[in-house]
Amino acid sequence: MGLSSLVYPGSHHTRFEHALGAMYVMQKAIQVLIGKGVSITTEENEAMQIAILLHDIGHGPFSHASEKILLRGIDHEAISLSVIKQLNLEFDGRLDKAIEIFSDRYPKKFMHQLVSGQIDVDRLDYLKRDSFYTGVTEGNINTNRIITMMHVQNQNLVFESKGVHSLEKFLLARRLMYWQVYLHKTSLAAELILVKVLERFRELISTGKEELTESHVLYPLIESDAEERLPNAVLLHYLALEDADILHLLKSWINHKDTVLSKLSKQLIYRKLPKIKIQDKPFTEKQIAKKRKRLKEHERQEDHKDYFVFTGSISNQTYITDEAQILLRNKQGDPIPLASAIDYLDFNPFSKPIYRYYLCYPKT
Amino acid sequence: MGLSSLVYPGSHHTRFEHALGAMYVMQKAIQVLIGKGVSITTEENEAMQIAILLHDIGHGPFSHASEKILLRGIDHEAISLSVIKQLNLEFDGRLDKAIEIFSDRYPKKFMHQLVSGQIDVDRLDYLKRDSFYTGVTEGNINTNRIITMMHVQNQNLVFESKGVHSLEKFLLARRLMYWQVYLHKTSLAAELILVKVLERFRELISTGKEELTESHVLYPLIESDAEERLPNAVLLHYLALEDADILHLLKSWINHKDTVLSKLSKQLIYRKLPKIKIQDKPFTEKQIAKKRKRLKEHERQEDHKDYFVFTGSISNQTYITDEAQILLRNKQGDPIPLASAIDYLDFNPFSKPIYRYYLCYPKT
Amino acid sequence: MGLSSLVYPGSHHTRFEHALGAMYVMQKAIQVLIGKGVSITTEENEAMQIAILLHDIGHGPFSHASEKILLRGIDHEAISLSVIKQLNLEFDGRLDKAIEIFSDRYPKKFMHQLVSGQIDVDRLDYLKRDSFYTGVTEGNINTNRIITMMHVQNQNLVFESKGVHSLEKFLLARRLMYWQVYLHKTSLAAELILVKVLERFRELISTGKEELTESHVLYPLIESDAEERLPNAVLLHYLALEDADILHLLKSWINHKDTVLSKLSKQLIYRKLPKIKIQDKPFTEKQIAKKRKRLKEHERQEDHKDYFVFTGSISNQTYITDEAQILLRNKQGDPIPLASAIDYLDFNPFSKPIYRYYLCYPKT
Amino acid sequence: MGLSSLVYPGSHHTRFEHALGAMYVMQKAIQVLIGKGVSITTEENEAMQIAILLHDIGHGPFSHASEKILLRGIDHEAISLSVIKQLNLEFDGRLDKAIEIFSDRYPKKFMHQLVSGQIDVDRLDYLKRDSFYTGVTEGNINTNRIITMMHVQNQNLVFESKGVHSLEKFLLARRLMYWQVYLHKTSLAAELILVKVLERFRELISTGKEELTESHVLYPLIESDAEERLPNAVLLHYLALEDADILHLLKSWINHKDTVLSKLSKQLIYRKLPKIKIQDKPFTEKQIAKKRKRLKEHERQEDHKDYFVFTGSISNQTYITDEAQILLRNKQGDPIPLASAIDYLDFNPFSKPIYRYYLCYPKT
Repeated sequence: MGLSSLVYPGSHHTRFEHALGAMYVMQKAIQVLIGKGVSITTEENEAMQIAILLHDIGHGPFSHASEKILLRGIDHEAISLSVIKQLNLEFDGRLDKAIEIFSDRYPKKFMHQLVSGQIDVDRLDYLKRDSFYTGVTEGNINTNRIITMMHVQNQNLVFESKGVHSLEKFLLARRLMYWQVYLHKTSLAAELILVKVLERFRELISTGKEELTESHVLYPLIESDAEERLPNAVLLHYLALEDADILHLLKSWINHKDTVLSKLSKQLIYRKLPKIKIQDKPFTEKQIAKKRKRLKEHERQEDHKDYFVFTGSISNQTYITDEAQILLRNKQGDPIPLASAIDYLDFNPFSKPIYRYYLCYPKT
Repeated sequence: MGLSSLVYPGSHHTRFEHALGAMYVMQKAIQVLIGKGVSITTEENEAMQIAILLHDIGHGPFSHASEKILLRGIDHEAISLSVIKQLNLEFDGRLDKAIEIFSDRYPKKFMHQLVSGQIDVDRLDYLKRDSFYTGVTEGNINTNRIITMMHVQNQNLVFESKGVHSLEKFLLARRLMYWQVYLHKTSLAAELILVKVLERFRELISTGKEELTESHVLYPLIESDAEERLPNAVLLHYLALEDADILHLLKSWINHKDTVLSKLSKQLIYRKLPKIKIQDKPFTEKQIAKKRKRLKEHERQEDHKDYFVFTGSISNQTYITDEAQILLRNKQGDPIPLASAIDYLDFNPFSKPIYRYYLCYPKT
Repeated sequence: MGLSSLVYPGSHHTRFEHALGAMYVMQKAIQVLIGKGVSITTEENEAMQIAILLHDIGHGPFSHASEKILLRGIDHEAISLSVIKQLNLEFDGRLDKAIEIFSDRYPKKFMHQLVSGQIDVDRLDYLKRDSFYTGVTEGNINTNRIITMMHVQNQNLVFESKGVHSLEKFLLARRLMYWQVYLHKTSLAAELILVKVLERFRELISTGKEELTESHVLYPLIESDAEERLPNAVLLHYLALEDADILHLLKSWINHKDTVLSKLSKQLIYRKLPKIKIQDKPFTEKQIAKKRKRLKEHERQEDHKDYFVFTGSISNQTYITDEAQILLRNKQGDPIPLASAIDYLDFNPFSKPIYRYYLCYPKT
Repeated sequence: MGLSSLVYPGSHHTRFEHALGAMYVMQKAIQVLIGKGVSITTEENEAMQIAILLHDIGHGPFSHASEKILLRGIDHEAISLSVIKQLNLEFDGRLDKAIEIFSDRYPKKFMHQLVSGQIDVDRLDYLKRDSFYTGVTEGNINTNRIITMMHVQNQNLVFESKGVHSLEKFLLARRLMYWQVYLHKTSLAAELILVKVLERFRELISTGKEELTESHVLYPLIESDAEERLPNAVLLHYLALEDADILHLLKSWINHKDTVLSKLSKQLIYRKLPKIKIQDKPFTEKQIAKKRKRLKEHERQEDHKDYFVFTGSISNQTYITDEAQILLRNKQGDPIPLASAIDYLDFNPFSKPIYRYYLCYPKT
């Protein structure tokens, strides 16, 4: 949940809990499918559980925030895959099938779709979990019923058509959670500042203003993005990193001699976050300039100003990339796309990513 | 909940619980509004609570099912008003203000809107309650947050614009509950049969085949619909009627010599409900005739056939008659209609009643 | 729950829901035991589910209240067994094993213990259910954990010793629910009055003051208690009786010419219940006489007074008749009695029935 | 919750959430008491809320674990008081009344009893919260009902006698949570090791094997216990310490050249905790010696062995120091001690602290 607990104080649940929960949901889904006569061998059963248990193992501290700056250029799914492959070596190939499922190279497509798809076990767990721990009950979904509606046709995951209302609810809950929680103004601001702090630290190193000893928690990461392929030592160092290490660093930077690093760290640790304005269109140069004019002198310096006034865009583009992928199965057993079964939803704005633009600037 | 417990075994909650719950929600809403500086006197506070406590007191047994046949022609709100007026006499006019609010004759419009409006305390209670007791968690709403978003502007109820997602969720939950619960095929079939049984009984009386002694629980009701104005004795008799009385009658009718009354009663008591087909267009004469051809001989008789094969329409027309009524209040304090703030909902199908047509016929 | 909804308005859940829930809990328990290597055949699995599904089928309307007056002298377990045997005939002996388990004649003792024992599936369902619907959260138990702790040793049900705190909690919750809910003053008063009404009706018949036509809902029941063995027709008539029929009767008796019957019926229907005093020692003749002196004239008549002022005792004797029956299994696999593992509970008052005495008399 | 999340993965809730929750419970309690006519002024109302909001502010990282080693000799309530006094300076004396209540120097005794007593707002919040987040539903209490039962008599907090079952439940839930959660073997082992690591670090410093620069997060703390009075700078440094800082230290110590520090840190970070045996009597010298004989050579060294094999005692002595403090108020308004109203609880073992003894030694 990144820094969401700044807004929703109860949302301290961890990725570990999500991994356990997703594995549990997968077990339920497998039970339902086997009960409906879908063929799943004991090995496939284990592989599906392994794939979902490890699907997020490549995430760094503070989720998506660190992803943008640590191991830059390598997405977390690629890292997850590296870790799973490493474990496969240790377990003498017992994770072979899990890797095939995770990488969507297994012939029974539905197994990958359960791990990663429009309505997958991952989302079924985290939507319910995040709704529960934030108290945003509007995002609650009926995981049990959605699982019960699952079936397989031509090796693809489909849903019994009488579950249409639960699927609708799932789509809308996901959309609502994006705007209400995941992209909430305050946690967005916090996440952007976290990225800025880490970027500043990287800049201090590249300009020789900060030394990076080998024992530094961030040492290999800073160097890693030049690499073609991820060396094992860097991977291990990366995996050892936790929220706690970043938090500790931020606290130590409060007294750092670089005023930018120090100021940004204070913004986070003392929860004095900048203002953030969100609108449908990009901010103009003029708007940005206006805000920069109001900066204090040292903040206005050429290599400082981007840390204090900055703009960018967010989108819920991952929402529905291709809604046709969700298939209902009517009583005759024919697959029908979900979009054609829901009359009142305008699927156009739904299937296009919605962009919003933000402008961050200091409170006055 | 009428006969919904035939589908959702947990939904045995009663109108009494709803009345208490709605009064509780009203108390919370009043607290919030007073906290925001809205002027509500002690008398108005009491009146609002009385109005919501008694808003449903005119309902007969099995909710809407009995409404169509008992006290025919008088809607339950009119009956509620009669009862409230009667109580007002007993309480020496202490319910005067409650009556004004209930009848929308009180200058502070928002008070009536809280009792009966697009997003009123009534719906805030029953949606949450029905979702809870049926286990249809998709219909759960965040009553607490919606209440917290309430405000008053020009004596009209408005909602803070940051609550938009909770209102969206309310609209969609209401729609979902209609199709998933309130108009569920099986409970719809049961409700239609209940109406048919009562209609048959009325017919037996009007044709002299059944006598109606004065002590009969249904006695005054059968007579009442000829009346211009509801006599007090009839009202009291009506109010004394409960689900239990109707159930008991149905059970006694199982052995009734009239085969129609007996057959229909058995359908309900033994849960051998007819088939029900639902489609977007009205059923043709041909379709109806085809089903009637398959009836058993005695069922096919001219004055019997309408009880065993029949058609009609349902709609969720009460859903949103005029969405403009829901107003958001943006940061500047200006009212904006909810519809203009929600981009992905196509409000056209939303604001028009959606009709569905059913055809009921015996299982073969 | 008898008449508990007079006190806890949410407790309208039914015996049918309990039967379904208990079957569900049984399925979970069977899964756990099979997972621990306990041998349960497919036939035994089905039989255990049937036994629990039907374990309460012999209950009459308003639970224990009607048991004292309807089919007098035959306890509800015997009636349940009659019904199960009847069903066994219809299903060509498929319920044979279920009957053996239900009657504790099956060699694998634990199967009966799960249906009916100190900590059985029946109690695991109803304690949780009743706590949930009444809102008496103090009575909530951790059904899931207790099931997970189950094991079988020498064909007896035992519990892993690390589950000791959950079992403690179960015992205390059960005790608490007895005093807080099942024996709550107000519902106790209501239940006693219900028994009194039915007794009065029986008396009117036996003294020829009331005729009992064959079609009367109570007809065969009144006669039945003279019978040696329950005739099938009486059984069917009994099974058809519901809360609704009794309620309807009570309402019709409000205008009955017998003032006792009429007064008692009014007490229930208008919720004008008598006062009830509860104490540790039996009430003296003097105390009773004092209350009777205050009765109105007609109430004071010789054959009336017992209906308006009466005394009796309640106990939670069924609580723990022999606590040795609950066995823990320590890490070495040896069985130890629960009582020896709980230090702070004084098991003496716990294992003896606690009696309380009540005196009922009219409010003045 | 210290290190409980090693056992109960969901228990990541924080002290901040508890402080907010306790303030909320206090608001409810104040509402109830005012509603019953107890005199509470606006200033007292604010002071009670401040006192409960800040009651735990003196806690260090990992709760009670750090208390034994950081700021040694000063209990966390004294630290809380120091912080509150510091805030009082900043707020120009506005916290005067809160300090009097917190220190039990305010004449209206019940106000302090609500902050810190046998059944106080602190416990009402944390028992419910900890039960919720661990999933140990047996520890759930009916906070709402207990609050509703509160009253004040002679300025002391009393409870309506009809709430006796809810109070019983509270006592038993508290006891259960102690043994099931707070003193759970695994989290106890983890907590003991955490204390051992910090003790080792302190030893390394006092023997000159580790230098302590001024910027070290633990710097002032190590020195502080020699102080007579807590200097402000030390207090601020202490307050800035978080779980994250300790965790980060432990991770850095994994590669420390001192094998004891390194080994203990690994035990925690890699969750390779020692075995822990718990029994009713102290462990004998012989038992300890036997375990030490099995230690590896370097672990057996004179100044190492106490870190790898050690014994001690735990108790739930804070449970009920003087049960007479909980007073019921019967219908006549007389106070009666809770103990005399509960028949089945043996209050002797209840009111004496129960000691248990542990022996920790490495897994082999």
